[in-house]
Parts: sequence; structure tokens; C-alpha cells
Amino acid sequence: MYRSHTCGELRIEHLNQSVTLSGWVSKIRKMGSMTFVDLRDRYGITQLAFNESVNADLMEEANKLGREFVIQIEGAVAERSSKNNQIPTGDIEIICAKLKVLNESLTPPFTIENETDGGDDIRMLYRYLDLRRDPVRKNLKLRHDLAQAIRNYLSDLDFMEVETPVLIKSTPEGARDFIVPSRLNPGQWYALPQSPQTFKQLLMVSGFDRYFQIVKCFRDEDLRADRQPEFTQIDCELSFVDRDDILDIFEGMTKYLFEKTKNISLGSFPRMTYADAMKYYGSDKPDTRFGMKFVELKSPENKIDLISGKDFALFDTAEAVIGICAEGQSVLTRKQIDSYVDYVKRPQIGATGIIWCRVELDGSVKSSVDKFYSPEDLAKWVEHFGAKPGDMIFVMAGKLEKTQKQLSELRLHLGNELNLRNSSVFSPLWVVDFPLLEWDEDANRYHAMHHPFTSPLIQDMALMETDPGRVRANAYDLVINGVEIGGGSIRIFDQHLQRKMFNLLGFTTEEAEYQFGFLLNAFKYGAPPHGGIALGFDRLCSLFGGSDSIRDFIAFPKNNSGRDVMIDAPSNLNKDQLKDLVILPAAN
Amino acid sequence: MYRSHTCGELRIEHLNQSVTLSGWVSKIRKMGSMTFVDLRDRYGITQLAFNESVNADLMEEANKLGREFVIQIEGAVAERSSKNNQIPTGDIEIICAKLKVLNESLTPPFTIENETDGGDDIRMLYRYLDLRRDPVRKNLKLRHDLAQAIRNYLSDLDFMEVETPVLIKSTPEGARDFIVPSRLNPGQWYALPQSPQTFKQLLMVSGFDRYFQIVKCFRDEDLRADRQPEFTQIDCELSFVDRDDILDIFEGMTKYLFEKTKNISLGSFPRMTYADAMKYYGSDKPDTRFGMKFVELKSPENKIDLISGKDFALFDTAEAVIGICAEGQSVLTRKQIDSYVDYVKRPQIGATGIIWCRVELDGSVKSSVDKFYSPEDLAKWVEHFGAKPGDMIFVMAGKLEKTQKQLSELRLHLGNELNLRNSSVFSPLWVVDFPLLEWDEDANRYHAMHHPFTSPLIQDMALMETDPGRVRANAYDLVINGVEIGGGSIRIFDQHLQRKMFNLLGFTTEEAEYQFGFLLNAFKYGAPPHGGIALGFDRLCSLFGGSDSIRDFIAFPKNNSGRDVMIDAPSNLNKDQLKDLVILPAAN
Repeated sequence: MYRSHTCGELRIEHLNQSVTLSGWVSKIRKMGSMTFVDLRDRYGITQLAFNESVNADLMEEANKLGREFVIQIEGAVAERSSKNNQIPTGDIEIICAKLKVLNESLTPPFTIENETDGGDDIRMLYRYLDLRRDPVRKNLKLRHDLAQAIRNYLSDLDFMEVETPVLIKSTPEGARDFIVPSRLNPGQWYALPQSPQTFKQLLMVSGFDRYFQIVKCFRDEDLRADRQPEFTQIDCELSFVDRDDILDIFEGMTKYLFEKTKNISLGSFPRMTYADAMKYYGSDKPDTRFGMKFVELKSPENKIDLISGKDFALFDTAEAVIGICAEGQSVLTRKQIDSYVDYVKRPQIGATGIIWCRVELDGSVKSSVDKFYSPEDLAKWVEHFGAKPGDMIFVMAGKLEKTQKQLSELRLHLGNELNLRNSSVFSPLWVVDFPLLEWDEDANRYHAMHHPFTSPLIQDMALMETDPGRVRANAYDLVINGVEIGGGSIRIFDQHLQRKMFNLLGFTTEEAEYQFGFLLNAFKYGAPPHGGIALGFDRLCSLFGGSDSIRDFIAFPKNNSGRDVMIDAPSNLNKDQLKDLVILPAAN
Repeated sequence: MYRSHTCGELRIEHLNQSVTLSGWVSKIRKMGSMTFVDLRDRYGITQLAFNESVNADLMEEANKLGREFVIQIEGAVAERSSKNNQIPTGDIEIICAKLKVLNESLTPPFTIENETDGGDDIRMLYRYLDLRRDPVRKNLKLRHDLAQAIRNYLSDLDFMEVETPVLIKSTPEGARDFIVPSRLNPGQWYALPQSPQTFKQLLMVSGFDRYFQIVKCFRDEDLRADRQPEFTQIDCELSFVDRDDILDIFEGMTKYLFEKTKNISLGSFPRMTYADAMKYYGSDKPDTRFGMKFVELKSPENKIDLISGKDFALFDTAEAVIGICAEGQSVLTRKQIDSYVDYVKRPQIGATGIIWCRVELDGSVKSSVDKFYSPEDLAKWVEHFGAKPGDMIFVMAGKLEKTQKQLSELRLHLGNELNLRNSSVFSPLWVVDFPLLEWDEDANRYHAMHHPFTSPLIQDMALMETDPGRVRANAYDLVINGVEIGGGSIRIFDQHLQRKMFNLLGFTTEEAEYQFGFLLNAFKYGAPPHGGIALGFDRLCSLFGGSDSIRDFIAFPKNNSGRDVMIDAPSNLNKDQLKDLVILPAAN
């Protein structure tokens, strides 16, 4: 061992002990007759002191050290004259008697400090140096702690972690698979799993009862910001359970993780239907850290209409007119309001504008549609919104779904602007009863909203024949602070219903058989009722770490072109490697 | 929840409780006015009783159940009249009041019992049914328990589990890589990792200090029996350590696992040099559950010669003459000895024969070379071997290495024949000081015996220039019962030595730079001394489970052609999938 203690370990009670430390030179301060070195390792920083009057040669050596040199020292623990109460070792320093350079270092291309001067590109190229920085290492320590806590929690509940295969069969339904040519089976390919979905269902057929796995999954997608081609999932499946059994267990796990790693205790998680989430937040993953719930001014479905017949064509012709009330925001200037209008007009959101309605402190109401609506009309709005003097109402109109999405964006933007989205506040909820299917205009067929194995709600089963688009699924998402942390469903466990589902999704019998024959077969031999959930582990870590970026919580992430710039992968192959693989040319 | 209790939970203290159970119909016994059903789940078996006189209709329903039907019952816990002390629930049965069939089952293609009538092929095709069998599930439970114990043990010692990437860069050194075309980077490929070796070394450069990962690795090899294209490794790396620090920690972990999962406490593990392992066992992974250590009758290197000059050409011309002594085996018949001769003459071993020498109970000696060696000569052999009356000596001769290997095979065969290799006895040891390089006759160059990052022993460093073949590595293997459970080494952490090593292995500077430039670069920025180990997790599980086959400890294994026969992978691709990948035709 190159050390008797780590750099985070020594305290005043070690006074006068002889110690050996090893680590990296973090800082050097030359103060004339004394030189001080901050020695760093994963565990902390310890100050080393070299004194000219004690050992001039040694101080000379210390003066030659460079940043990030790896050194080993021997010395005695002494009390510092000027203590540093910012660090746990701040009461002591080491009076060095020996110094050995274990390895030298070039000057790093950026500073190894909490606030580095390195930009994203250079830090990724030298990720091994970036990982030396405390905040990055803390993120990965948090990831480790969360994984350990999850494994122990689930193991205690009789879940078994089972490793499912990585080299599997391609199932082109859903996202694109990464594929792997098989040399031993020429012309054939493996695929990397997008999730272990079918395997975990087979484990239920096998009677494993409670399965989990923290597992790498792969999707060959065009990468958006904060998507990775390989990502990690907490994958779980249970037998003989109803939806609420699953929600209870994973709500319990989430609370446990918050308590264990953040010392935060959360109340029970509200459960909201997908329909309500869309109605009140215009989103299936509402950020419930703040209010501003949607209020309908016009909704044919809910027989609400406070706006028609006043010659305001925009509202009269709109399918839906919806608004939100920003409490105490009557103070907003015209300029601020204009900036919100600009925000929602950006092409990513594509709204045409915002109608506003200000409730003055004296109770009078001003709006951008005063021309069409009388003070009495507007007073009804105010009452309908439950707005108080000093509040500000924003209204948007158009096609229902589009308007919901646009108003949701405005709501989130206001939440940011008004500092209502505090990253140290956590507001979890379950969104339930998602639609089973979504219509794909381009392909002119239904897609499974969750996946083809999701069970419809029993009460909607009859609609499968008559109106499949209206069937609700027994599916659920865990949402925290507007982020989808995970989702799952009760699965189909009846082979006939599963075939019907494949049928609805446009699979021919042959296609279903070719791709999922093994699962359909397995269902013939006594499949139990079962369901499960998968949580995005990268996303969970970033939520717990208070960051928006999953990349900060992955040791060696890839960039937006799926490239690891540090190792320079993917890369060209040595042609001998391709020779053994009978690979067909791309058929164009 | 479909149950109030599992099928392994109810005891006599639950008497008269109303319960709901769910599970699989394991057995049905119709006894006239009573029908008994064994209901099975992962946790156990509970007997259900249906009584004609109580509820004739219900018994009728029960009589219609088939094997492996999934059912849910309600009933009351009753004391059994004839108890079954083979199972924990054997004191009770459930008097059923309600029965619901949750799912039917076809008759399984083999029996779901500990000793099944199904052959290997059909069990793999229906692996989801095979996994219902108790022994298979127990194997996977053991795997889960071991993984949990390892993670907790290492976490307690400040190891951090860090996930390294699966889509990496191909490094053709070593075994063949599985490769993955990149759609976003046309013409370029990822490779799947054969191990996270370079990443874990980078993590040491990053100051992670103690890393581990239980991780899938991939090798595209021609599969031998009991090799899998994807396998799981317990991968570990530590900084600022010497060899013995690493051996101590992982010896500690191994002992902990034996105590925790098998209640076996092991003494400290012997450490044996590679040279001694070859000398005394003819193998770098000796099975030390039994003795029969090699004894040299002729070894020019060790200046031993008890056999020359007696006109026995076989011995006179042999480089080495070595034997083993089988205690108490003078009783072996000529026929038995002949069977051993046949065994070593098989082409896999390729020996020409065995010389034997029997020490009769009266102390007289008989041998198959009496013609050449006098009783006095043979008495010297006996003394040299330390043989006692009643023992039997077997001797083989030829080129040193070949003879060592052949005699090792004979030794292991005798161990089996004489029941000296008990699978419930565990004999661990560390083999250390492996050669750094091995000469590849075909390629006319050196290969790294462990891998190119292994450090030479400091005391052999000078030989790097003069006689590289004789340099010993600071490398070690953990061997238990003749099985290599894992291996590792102290790594090179100096960029210049690493370059020299690549050079010795025949890399040009450009090749080294192209393949491992990122590592060589990282070494310029303060790499700490470090080393590590990787244990084969599949192999470890099979050792703990007392089995020779790793396949029994993998949920969904592949066969010898790398095929998953259950899901039928690899498979042909839909041609749209290949269209987006610019794949070059195989260059022949």
C-alpha cells in the first residue's frame, strides 16, 4: 500500500503520528521559507508543509512539483497555525520528511477545480481529467449510492436480479435496433435490447414472481440533446399483482431513496389520470411543483362556454379556449408580457399569441380583448378562474391538443421566470390510465402508446372492437418535477388478447409469430397475471443530483452524434475483421 | 394482489385463517371423495384439499384442472391428517371454498420436476418452462445472492460501481470483437467490450481509487463447451496498491462469500508461483484438493537424474521424466492401469504411454521397466517419491512442457477415478508471477500472456531488453479446485514502459497510438500506480453451486453456435434495417 491514510482522513486526534500519503498535487503555494502543497485524492485534500529551515533540499524538490503530479510523502501530523474550516482536514497539516514523485503530469488542458475553465468539448476529450473534478465524481458517487440502495431495497422485498441477454433478436417495432453480425451464423444478426421487456415477461411465465435488473439498454435513434444511444434502466416485473400493488412498491422505493440519499421525506404520491393531466396541465408529465392549473373558458366536451358570441372570431372559431392564472402577477409590464408572447410564437411551440387579462389591485379588470368583452364578461372570467386582485390571466385558443401543449409550454416558462421550479423541491405523482393506442397519420395505423404487451383496462375491453382509439391502458408513469422518471403497465397474459393486440397494431399473424412467437408460445403454458415498470436510471440520478443533464451522471457519455470523442469510437475497422463476417451490401 | 400469502408461507400457526393463494398446479391426486392439488410458486408448495361431501361442484372443477394451470383459490388453513415433513408447509393444507382458473396450460413438453424427463435441447427451446424447475431457479437465486453479497462487500470497502460503456472501439489485439455498425457515423463501427480494461484504468487516472463493476463482456470466439459469447465479469481496479493488497482484499471477499452463502469458513489461501505450479502440478490452475504432486526423476534444470544410463532409450532421450505417487493404489489391476494408458493416449492428450512402479505391501517393487531398472534402482525411485508400501507410482517422459501437461491430465483423471475431487470441498490458492510474454510460433512474435497493460516484476525489468521471454509479470490468478476463477495484475502506469511493452508485442508506434492513444495520453497527466482483478462471475456461480456447467447459472444461455434457440436469435433482418447502415461488402 502506498499510503497509511487517505487525503480525507486525518484530524487533530492524529497529532504527531507518522503517516504516508499519496495523491495528486492540487495546488502549490510558495511563501518564501515555506512551501505548502494541497494533496488531493478521492477522499479529500490534505495540506503538506515543507520548511526551508527544517529541510531545504526537500523544499527545493517540492518547489519543482507541478499541478497533477502524483506524489507519495512521509511526515508527521501537525496542528495548523491558521486553520481552514472549509475542509474536514483543515485543522492539520503534514510536516513532510520524505517526498517521492510517483508520476509526473503535463499541465492539464483545463483546471481541475469545481468551476473549471474547460468547455464541454475539451472536457469530453479529456474525460479522464474531467472525472477528477469533485462535482463530477460526486455525481457518480450518487449514482453508485442510488444503485446500491435500489438493489438492497428490492432484494429485501424478494426481488431477484436476473441478467437477461444482450445479444438478442431484432424486433423492428418501436425505435431502431443496434445490430450485430453473427460470424458463426453467417448472414444473421443479433440486436441489442431496447429493453428486456419480453425476457422479463418470460421470467414471470417461469414463476420468478419478482424480478429486477439495473441494465444497459440501447436505441439507435437520432440523438436529441440529453439522449444517449446506451442508457441504463431499472427494470422490474411482478406476478399476481394489480396496478396499485406496483405503484405502492415503487412509491415506497422512491421515498426510501429520497430519505436515504437526500434526507427528504415525501408524502404519498397523488395519482392523476392521463385525461386530467392533459386537462389541467396540458401534459402527461406535469410539473406539480407549482399551481397555475388550466381553466377552460370554452370546452364543448365539458359544456363550458364563457366567450362565444362576442364577435371575437379567434375565440368563436377555436375548438378550445384555455387559460392559466398567475398569482400576484398583475405587476407584469407590457414588455414582459410581450416576451412571453415571443416565447410561445417560437417555431418549436408555434402559438399565434396570448390573450391576457389583468385583475388590478382595485378589482377592476383590463385585458387585451377589451374591445370584445365587457367588464361584466371579464368579471365572469375572473370568477371562473378564481382570480384575486393582483393576479394575471393568460389565455390561449385553437385546436384542443395543440392549445394544451402550447399553454403547457407557457406555464412551464412562467414557472421558470417566476422561480417556481426549485430544483431542491420534489413533487412526485403517478399519471395513470393512458390511452392504449395512438393513431399514426403517416402509417395509417395504430401504434401502442406504451408497448404491444400493455393490457387494456378491463372496463374498456369492449371498446377494443368498436372504438380502439378510446381504449385506456392499465399503464402508469411516475413523474417528478415534470420529468418522466419511469413507466409501466399491467401486461396482457392471455394469448388470445395478445394476438388481438398484435392484430390491432397491424401485424399479420406471420409477423407476430416470427417476432414474438416465443412469447405467444410461452403464454400457452400457464402465464400468470403480471405487470411491471421501468425507471430511467440516468434520469433518476440527474433528478436526485439537481441537474437537467443525464450526461453529468454517466462516466463516459457519448455526444449528440453517438460518438465517444475520448476513445474516438465508432471507428474504421481493420479489414480482416470484416472478412469473416458475411455482410451483405446495403440494398438501396 | 391475487394472494394473501405465498405458497411457501403457511404454517400450523395460521390454522383456521382464511387465505387466498395463487400459483401453478403442480400435481393432482384424485382419491375418490377427495381431490388434492399441490399448488406451486417460487416460494414453495401448498396442498389444496377439495372434498366432495363439502362442495361437490368445486371438487368437480378441481378435477378438471391440468398440470401447470394457473389458479387462484380461497379457503381456510387446516391441519393435515397425514403430515409431510419434507416441505415447510407440510403440516397444513387449504380447505378450498373458491377456485378460479387464471390461465390454462397445454401439457408441458417435459415434466416440471427436479429430475425432469426433458433433454437439453427441448429444455433450452422451452427455457421459460425449464426455469420453473426448482434446481434451475435455485441456481439463479444463488447468482443473485452472490451478486448482492459482492456489491455490499465491495461498497463497504469504498469501492464504487461505475458503469463503463458497451459501445466502444474495436481493439483487435486478443480475441475477436463483436462489432456494431453506426448509422450516424456511416462506415464506422463500434465494438462490444471484451472487458472494461482500458476504462477501469482511465478511472484510476481519474482518481476513482477503488472501482468495481459486475458487467457483461463479449467475445466472438469459436465456442467451446461451456463458453458463452456474452459472459459476466466482476471487474475491479484499485490505486496506490501493491500486489498483496489486492490479493488480501479479494481473498477476503471470497472467504466472505463462502461464509455468507455456504457457511464454509476457509483458511488463508496459499500463494504459489507459476513456476512451482508447473513443476508440481503441470498446470497453472492446479486442483489442490488432493496431493499427488509431481516428482522429477530427471530434470537437467534441477540437476536431478535417477534414470539415465540404464539403456532405457525412452528415458535417456527424454528432456524430462516426471511421476506422481498414488497413495494406497498398489491394488490397481492391470486392466485399470491399461485404462489409464488409454486415457492419456487419446488425441486430446497425446501421450505415448505410462511407466508404472508398484510398491507391494511387503515393500518389494514391481514395475513395467523391470528389464532396465534393478530393484535397487527402483528402491531409489520409491525413496525419492516418498512412496510407502501399498502405493503406486506413475511416470511419464518426454519434452518438459508437454509431459507436464500430460501428467497433469493423468493426475486429474486419477483424482476423478479415486473420488479425490469432491465438489463440496473447496481448495483455493493464488498462482503468482506468471510469465509476462508468450512466444507465438505462427506469428513469430510475443503475445502478452495476461494483457498488454500488465507490469513486469520490478526485479525482472532489466530482462525486458536482454531476454524478454524470461520476464515475469506482476500477475496473479485465483484458482479454486483446479478452476481459474479470476486473474489480474499490477498495471504499467508509466507511459514510456507502456510504449516499450507495445513495442515488444510488435505494435508500430502508429498502431499503438491509433488503438490506445487515449490511454497513452491519459498516462501523461499523472497516472497513479494501480492494479486490479477480474473474476468470472458465471464460473464463480457454478463453483459455488457445485456444478461444472456455467450454462446452468445463466437465465437465457446460448448454445455452442452462439444461438438462443428459444427466441431464435441471431436471425435474418428486415431489409429496411440494413438500408440505413452503409455496410461495406465483405472484402474477400
